Amino acid sequence: MHETYYSLAPIGYLRSPLKDRGAAPNQGREGAPDAWLDVDAVVAEGREGIEVGAELIVITWLHQAGRDILKTHPRNDQTRPLTGVFATRSPDRPNPLGLHRVTVREIAGNRVKVGPIEAIDGTPVVDLKPVLSASADF
Amino acid sequence: MHETYYSLAPIGYLRSPLKDRGAAPNQGREGAPDAWLDVDAVVAEGREGIEVGAELIVITWLHQAGRDILKTHPRNDQTRPLTGVFATRSPDRPNPLGLHRVTVREIAGNRVKVGPIEAIDGTPVVDLKPVLSASADF
Repeated sequence: MHETYYSLAPIGYLRSPLKDRGAAPNQGREGAPDAWLDVDAVVAEGREGIEVGAELIVITWLHQAGRDILKTHPRNDQTRPLTGVFATRSPDRPNPLGLHRVTVREIAGNRVKVGPIEAIDGTPVVDLKPVLSASADF
Repeated sequence: MHETYYSLAPIGYLRSPLKDRGAAPNQGREGAPDAWLDVDAVVAEGREGIEVGAELIVITWLHQAGRDILKTHPRNDQTRPLTGVFATRSPDRPNPLGLHRVTVREIAGNRVKVGPIEAIDGTPVVDLKPVLSASADF
């Protein structure tokens, strides 16, 4: 995997009351707060069509993750056997992308309030996609 | 969004009978085939724990996408109004990440057969994650 790289640019950043990894739940539905996504003005046109109440997949870049970790104890539970990171949702993984299913709470200019979301304050967002199905929990 | 970039490395590549974008359905469940994912040996340990029959989210880098496109007609239907790409699943978007919900069909060494998946032959894969809920369709 060393010869080829792709360049990922943030489309915005999350502003959250969660200030560090220790304070963040493992998943949004485990008590996470809402957060504001500040969409960069350069790409803000791309959010036209997103409405309050819509369900989105937010893709983050988990900038504090460890990228050289290939095995982990799921949910940091040392009693669970070491498992390959691709079989877990650990933030520590070669490309630390986070997937967060959220609801759009409010829109104010280039800011979109979404939640619940377990990512910490300052987390870069790299993509937004609509949820395709009402049954979805991905 | 121009000052900061993150570097994304493929963890493997898809080997699919779909050879070009024109041949690919819009979504996997719209008649897409299975494909082999060749996991790079450097990160292959990360797939331990993935079992045949499991449901995964495959995150791809849609390497043929147009990254400067911010609005599109959903599903290439010119009768539908131009919509911001973040409100669509268009592959053309600033960071052309693809999300694909698949089932693991077979595992052979560092190769994992998954499907159905609409990504074309040679598409880089950047992450794999387990589906968290049986109800999922993201």
